[in-house]
Amino acid sequence: MSKEENRTEISELGEFGLIKHLSEFIEIKNKSSITGVGDDAAVIEYKNKQIVVTTDMLVEGVHFDLTYTPLKHLGYKAVVINLSDVYAMNANPMQITVSIAFSNRFSLEAIEDLYSGIFLACKKYGVDLVGGDTTSSLSGLMISITAIGEADKKDIVLRSTAKANDLICVTGDLGGAYVGLQLLEREKTVFEADPNMQPDLAGHDYILERQLKPEARKDIIAMLKELKVKPTSMIDISDGLSSELLHLCHASETGGRLYEEKLPIDHSTYSVAREFNFDPSTCALNGGEDYELLFTIDLKDHNKVKNDPNITIIGHITSKEEGCNLITKDGKQYPLTAQGWDAFLNKKEEK
Amino acid sequence: MSKEENRTEISELGEFGLIKHLSEFIEIKNKSSITGVGDDAAVIEYKNKQIVVTTDMLVEGVHFDLTYTPLKHLGYKAVVINLSDVYAMNANPMQITVSIAFSNRFSLEAIEDLYSGIFLACKKYGVDLVGGDTTSSLSGLMISITAIGEADKKDIVLRSTAKANDLICVTGDLGGAYVGLQLLEREKTVFEADPNMQPDLAGHDYILERQLKPEARKDIIAMLKELKVKPTSMIDISDGLSSELLHLCHASETGGRLYEEKLPIDHSTYSVAREFNFDPSTCALNGGEDYELLFTIDLKDHNKVKNDPNITIIGHITSKEEGCNLITKDGKQYPLTAQGWDAFLNKKEEK
Repeated sequence: MSKEENRTEISELGEFGLIKHLSEFIEIKNKSSITGVGDDAAVIEYKNKQIVVTTDMLVEGVHFDLTYTPLKHLGYKAVVINLSDVYAMNANPMQITVSIAFSNRFSLEAIEDLYSGIFLACKKYGVDLVGGDTTSSLSGLMISITAIGEADKKDIVLRSTAKANDLICVTGDLGGAYVGLQLLEREKTVFEADPNMQPDLAGHDYILERQLKPEARKDIIAMLKELKVKPTSMIDISDGLSSELLHLCHASETGGRLYEEKLPIDHSTYSVAREFNFDPSTCALNGGEDYELLFTIDLKDHNKVKNDPNITIIGHITSKEEGCNLITKDGKQYPLTAQGWDAFLNKKEEK
Repeated sequence: MSKEENRTEISELGEFGLIKHLSEFIEIKNKSSITGVGDDAAVIEYKNKQIVVTTDMLVEGVHFDLTYTPLKHLGYKAVVINLSDVYAMNANPMQITVSIAFSNRFSLEAIEDLYSGIFLACKKYGVDLVGGDTTSSLSGLMISITAIGEADKKDIVLRSTAKANDLICVTGDLGGAYVGLQLLEREKTVFEADPNMQPDLAGHDYILERQLKPEARKDIIAMLKELKVKPTSMIDISDGLSSELLHLCHASETGGRLYEEKLPIDHSTYSVAREFNFDPSTCALNGGEDYELLFTIDLKDHNKVKNDPNITIIGHITSKEEGCNLITKDGKQYPLTAQGWDAFLNKKEEK
């Protein structure tokens, strides 16, 4: 939140004043964005491309905690998690709409911070903000974003088209966003107990960034195109590797086998997990919010990806009858379970 | 809300269980909807059409009051207000995405009621539900809907293209939704003071329906096409006639003149307004939530619309210098002001 001495009430501007103010920062860059904010609807045109549409809603106290989430980061992340869904279709995002509801706890400067993150993500990913809605809430902040992207029909990759013997690949590394969150929650608890304590976050830049400022894997979509690899199926990892693989295998009517020893885990994720007495592999399997891509490729493409530092082959698709299993480092087999993050089991929910 | 004896907790299903349950009711009908719910994003295809996109967010306590708003009606209305924005572009809605956040005050049965209204609106307007998000909130219900529609490039009507001497037309009648809301608020106050009092809503079906179950003017878009009338500009009336005409004239860089005597007001709106000691014309000008269409036509099209019972010519566009004015029944001229509904001036906001 902005400092008190520089606080402008939203009620001084009203809804139309706020929209006008925020709209001044909008630049439309994509040829497919015909008209943006300022009419009943935006107009876009994709000619012979197929269009993908995805939407996500973030609620204060459920998906984010403003005690340790800077509003600019929140705006950035809210865009990125939607773009990640577009990339997971092997498509390229082009437009977003942004709806926000917020109470009068938020000043104009706070809303500007939020939008500065939104605009930064738009710029970085080459996406146009073409519409939205701003309104008040009785309490807290809600952000609902819809992302629209394009792909040639032949390029679109669904999650339902994996087949037995395909290799299971994952980008980047896993579990970092989860242990970053645990670190932030711990320091919040310390701070609440004694506000004179300074948060001890030094040296944890990587996992904090994984939690607070994740990136969507635009680079992977471009790279796969360059390598002439079309995944046989794909999904992004928002709820955790286990949960997403179960979705993918369920949709594809297959089973799958993951190898614990193959799971890509950054050393800083590993050491902080250990500090918390968490099993690093469990963090990688169930942590969520990594926004990496989980995809399958045909065996014939193995050579094209096997040496890529951004991609790790972690298992393979099996028949449906075999189910989804993890082979542990000591060679035992356990069925995978969806312990991903479930908004409806959130402990903070009102009773 | 559903009765206590038939209450299923959402936490029994979890997010994926809920999505699966609700998805069973979804039928995809439009050719442009290639794939719907069930992947990272929906896939749609419009070939040579232009696409319009609009989004609206509704927040409990700000936009609706569940004391007197049945959830089914709320779901219906949440869809309709988005479709209205698509029609206001002279386009036809084809897909929606629906994101909702709700606290554990809401049972599965309550969420089913809400979705039954959403599905009813989809069916009536020929729209496919292709995506969305369901999540929890710490308090209350939020609904964010994005509607996507199509039009031939040549058919799209913006709000910025009115010109001097165009006739200003409005569909249906105005002010009904506003006086309907006043009636509901009055009966709520009576009920809160004495829960044994039964609400006195008999005989007010029309204005209650205007408030609780508005319709979008799909019929007008079809009719104008049949009459071969392309409006020179168009906007839908969500915040009140005055406010919308000011938007339209501002965007078009024109002025406008409305005649009080021409304002279409239903007799039931008129009589309830009088009962409340409201000026019926003020209700029509500033009431909001009518979801009628305000549009301008070239003088040459006058004969095509002048006898249509669904359309009233209420004034004409003037030069920018003349501003936007109302000519009252006694011939006086007053500048129009935007007293439309502003979410940020809402009296219920937390202090």
